[in-house]
Amino acid sequence: MAQRVRLYVDQPLAAGQSLDLAADQAHYLFAVMRLTEGAQLGLFNGRDGGEWEAVVAETGKRKGRLNVLFEAAPPQPRPDLWLLFAPLKKARTDMLVEKATELGATRLQPVATDYTNAERVREDRLAAIAREAAEQSGATSVPEVSGLEKLSALLDGWDPARELWFCDEMRAEDPAVPEAPAEGPGAILIGPEGGFSPAERERLRALPFCRPVALGRRILRAETAAISALTLWLAARGFP
Amino acid sequence: MAQRVRLYVDQPLAAGQSLDLAADQAHYLFAVMRLTEGAQLGLFNGRDGGEWEAVVAETGKRKGRLNVLFEAAPPQPRPDLWLLFAPLKKARTDMLVEKATELGATRLQPVATDYTNAERVREDRLAAIAREAAEQSGATSVPEVSGLEKLSALLDGWDPARELWFCDEMRAEDPAVPEAPAEGPGAILIGPEGGFSPAERERLRALPFCRPVALGRRILRAETAAISALTLWLAARGFP
Repeated sequence: MAQRVRLYVDQPLAAGQSLDLAADQAHYLFAVMRLTEGAQLGLFNGRDGGEWEAVVAETGKRKGRLNVLFEAAPPQPRPDLWLLFAPLKKARTDMLVEKATELGATRLQPVATDYTNAERVREDRLAAIAREAAEQSGATSVPEVSGLEKLSALLDGWDPARELWFCDEMRAEDPAVPEAPAEGPGAILIGPEGGFSPAERERLRALPFCRPVALGRRILRAETAAISALTLWLAARGFP
Repeated sequence: MAQRVRLYVDQPLAAGQSLDLAADQAHYLFAVMRLTEGAQLGLFNGRDGGEWEAVVAETGKRKGRLNVLFEAAPPQPRPDLWLLFAPLKKARTDMLVEKATELGATRLQPVATDYTNAERVREDRLAAIAREAAEQSGATSVPEVSGLEKLSALLDGWDPARELWFCDEMRAEDPAVPEAPAEGPGAILIGPEGGFSPAERERLRALPFCRPVALGRRILRAETAAISALTLWLAARGFP
């Protein structure tokens, strides 16, 4: 079955709008997806409505133009859910960003923890992976990918109205699925493969907005823990 | 933090036992993990107790010998949970096998569905990925990786006592987390990227042991759906 081509764009979207394509977008649409003049596709920008039907008006090697026709589908809201994660190895970070985007997270925040290997985070690369995952999963918006921040600094400025699920491998012997509050913003914190330091653990446990969560009896890799925790958060709220 | 070296073996495990290593095991322990004579590691075979402490007695390029010392940790039971999945592209099938092993599935069953691309399944490769995931996730057993079977044939011979969760993307507009029965064996069925055929859907919905499950409002890739469904099944039973 041919998959519908969908493209995230930065530009405003409205009926009758004409869009000039950047070189990478033209490459994707015309070289990879083989669209020709007159072909239709879906567009979204996360701001103006949901998915817009558009038609290829001009093709080119490194450029092209689309005409926006009409709004084809309503916006698909994302729950107000952040994912804070310690950077992993490249392929596993990529997977985590892709899966968190599919599951609907609104913000992906890399954090430096006491046991994080001080790897650089390529925000632009992760943002591109999030865009692609949104395009392929029928989303009408893309989560924000933030720059690496220290966990301690994030906690200093934390809005206490945002409940933080602290996924703590060390409590694996004591599984406990939290009952999420019926509403309100949330965040999930996944540590590095080495876990959290005793000082971090102590601080997190003492924070009133922080809820330790154990994800079963087994040792999960960080990216598995992230997908499981996102799923449980969504399920606890009836999949918003 | 150095990770404890763990190895799945076929041989019986008991205190005082001596084990000759196969070439790939010797390569892994001595070339990859750099173990030397006298180094200790963990062994498990899924049958004899849990994790056994062992010591390197002889090293070699393509061989070596271990001595089994004592049982260091009790067996970690897996819930009686199967994952039936249509083969995906290589990297995504690998990911699915790794994650299902981490989450505790006991049997991984590739299925051919009406819309499955008739890809060959390399059971031996998938079994190796499952072994590695078990070694790295602290498990004391490895799920069975079965050969590709037709979904229709599997359903013909299905034990009705094993509830089958049928993860149907088409019901995504109507999310419903099932309340699992408190006990009994289970299975999760994840279709190919193209979904199930109308005939498959009709048959599955009519089967008394089959429970359609929607995993939220979003379109999830097959491997994401598998991880989410495994997580929800486990959570509904208190993470057995």
